[in-house]
Amino acid sequence: MKIVIAPDSFKESLTAMEVADQIERGFRTVLPHAQYLKLPVADGGEGTVQSMVDATNGHIVWTKVTGPLGEQVNAFYGILGEQYHRHEKTAVIEMAAASGLHLAPPAQRNPLLTTSYGTGELIVDALNRGIKHIIIGLGGSATNDGGAGMAQALGAQLLDKTASPIGLGGAALSQLEYIDLTQLHPLLAECQFEVACDVDNPLCGDSGASAVFGPQKGATKQMVEQLDCALSHYADVISQSGINDYRNEAGVGAAGGMGLGLMAFVNAKLKPGIDIVIDAVDLAAHIQGADLVITGEGRLDSQTLHGKTPMGVAAVAGKFDVPVIAIAGSVSDGANILLEHGFSALFSITPRALPLAEVLLNAKHNLYCTSSNIAALYNLAPSKR
Amino acid sequence: MKIVIAPDSFKESLTAMEVADQIERGFRTVLPHAQYLKLPVADGGEGTVQSMVDATNGHIVWTKVTGPLGEQVNAFYGILGEQYHRHEKTAVIEMAAASGLHLAPPAQRNPLLTTSYGTGELIVDALNRGIKHIIIGLGGSATNDGGAGMAQALGAQLLDKTASPIGLGGAALSQLEYIDLTQLHPLLAECQFEVACDVDNPLCGDSGASAVFGPQKGATKQMVEQLDCALSHYADVISQSGINDYRNEAGVGAAGGMGLGLMAFVNAKLKPGIDIVIDAVDLAAHIQGADLVITGEGRLDSQTLHGKTPMGVAAVAGKFDVPVIAIAGSVSDGANILLEHGFSALFSITPRALPLAEVLLNAKHNLYCTSSNIAALYNLAPSKR
Repeated sequence: MKIVIAPDSFKESLTAMEVADQIERGFRTVLPHAQYLKLPVADGGEGTVQSMVDATNGHIVWTKVTGPLGEQVNAFYGILGEQYHRHEKTAVIEMAAASGLHLAPPAQRNPLLTTSYGTGELIVDALNRGIKHIIIGLGGSATNDGGAGMAQALGAQLLDKTASPIGLGGAALSQLEYIDLTQLHPLLAECQFEVACDVDNPLCGDSGASAVFGPQKGATKQMVEQLDCALSHYADVISQSGINDYRNEAGVGAAGGMGLGLMAFVNAKLKPGIDIVIDAVDLAAHIQGADLVITGEGRLDSQTLHGKTPMGVAAVAGKFDVPVIAIAGSVSDGANILLEHGFSALFSITPRALPLAEVLLNAKHNLYCTSSNIAALYNLAPSKR
Repeated sequence: MKIVIAPDSFKESLTAMEVADQIERGFRTVLPHAQYLKLPVADGGEGTVQSMVDATNGHIVWTKVTGPLGEQVNAFYGILGEQYHRHEKTAVIEMAAASGLHLAPPAQRNPLLTTSYGTGELIVDALNRGIKHIIIGLGGSATNDGGAGMAQALGAQLLDKTASPIGLGGAALSQLEYIDLTQLHPLLAECQFEVACDVDNPLCGDSGASAVFGPQKGATKQMVEQLDCALSHYADVISQSGINDYRNEAGVGAAGGMGLGLMAFVNAKLKPGIDIVIDAVDLAAHIQGADLVITGEGRLDSQTLHGKTPMGVAAVAGKFDVPVIAIAGSVSDGANILLEHGFSALFSITPRALPLAEVLLNAKHNLYCTSSNIAALYNLAPSKR
């Protein structure tokens, strides 16, 4: 019997690998001789690097880069395990690790100034290690610079009318006159980029990067207008430089316009995060021929349908007609819709009426207990007796 | 496929039949063509009459009797459905219905005075309807009269030294000189009594009726001594009347000595409540040949091992090698011990971190959802595919 365990993390309590470990432990109490394959899966959001490194037995690389405010910060990215470099040697970067909001104290959050430069440095570090495939998650950025900082770190010359480099940050983009790509990192051309992007915002306008995501990064109404204008000008200059005009593509407004920068400067493909992750860890190959798939996340609700990990896992399992059950810390009433979308059953690990803090604290034990009970019930095959 | 659903009530939220209904409803969403047998089971405590009437399609009888303080009260008992009169026509009485603590306002709770007379009247009513088998549950009584009031209602003459009847209540027993059984109800001899008794207290002494149960019925320390002395004298007179001396039998101290009165005057057998109920509803015959048994109670914990409904049901299922799962509102950490005592799996209906009031309020819906998920998982028989 082969059982694939492919959960997301339980936010605020367990990493995806910890979740997978407890599910396996619970199942082993009842089915000790089954074959278990643990593939922690993330949806491109926070924790994706750790999950993918865990899933593929890869490793984390730490390096000093330029933080969103220009200061030096310690940042990390992941390199997948050898057997998962199906096409090329693969790295996973969470933009937030180098350019995240959590690196900017609230009082200093100013998207006129914050830069994605550090994310570009992570890419350079990966390129220099021979990486030929980079997956980038965009969540949690502090920046609104259209990925200009990243481009600068990669060697693009963003010049003003005096042919001097413009400064870092979103506001400086209004000074941009010309882009010189002759000094781009030479290995970029050999590297494929996939960007986990679950929003469809364009670069500018009412649903653009500045208007929608600017305020949560500290932008005032006036700043939003200034940044929107600067990004529009940036897009103009990019297209004048012989690069396609992507400003209205779905998702280029993600992460302060980082989506645009990645499309324009590294020829990235924007895709739903879960699709990228599932492909990278070869989930389909592992699920084919399995008897059961177990997935889960901290909270199952009607939103789970829309690009969340369990839904992505269920879609793959459905292709191979393998049943899927989901285990969660919290199952909302709305989650029952999942039963109409490929899930056989949903279980909460909450054993009784309890305050949230206690549920989070005991998540590991409760997940183990619930998993062993699920295994026992699964093992009560009516046709066996 | 045959599935037996034999739960207790979920205290404070659902009757045992309501629990069984929701479990069936949930299972039917996945296994619409299975054969379901719903047998709500109680352990002899509060709710036993309703459960047994529900389980056997019986009916409730209401009648006016003497309450614990001597006033008229409306009381009820149950008559089991026809097919469950295996040996004889069977009634079920909860002593509390006629002589319960809830019928005496706190300020008037005085076990020197409270009487079990009304319980005797319920027995008389049943005898007059041709009942030949009476099951009595002892929980929640307000009395400490050794079942003397019940005996009086049944026609026993409890006389003082002037050959006048003694009064009602525990204190009056000290006046007892002689017992005349010649006017006992004539149908008593044809009726079998089984008493649900889950304690092993003797009549008198430190672990006797007065010392252990008196205080919760309003007895002061001085009253406890007085009542203990009166019960001892009562036992003396009973044995002098040619009746066996049961005062040191396990359980006769239950319900203020009602256990003794029932043994002495109606030749009752004291048994664990769950055993009586399981026998009365013919649980073994129904479980034999079933594919799955589902039981449950409001709270599963380590105490469930000791005479609670789910354990009794599991014991019967174990005899016939039918797997048992339990569903509860609350599963305590200690409940895992049940997995070593015949239970295949335990599930809580709590979907997420919630306050108790909300869990109780939504018990019906959550039980239905959990049951449908359990059925779905049960239906994922590995060997079917």
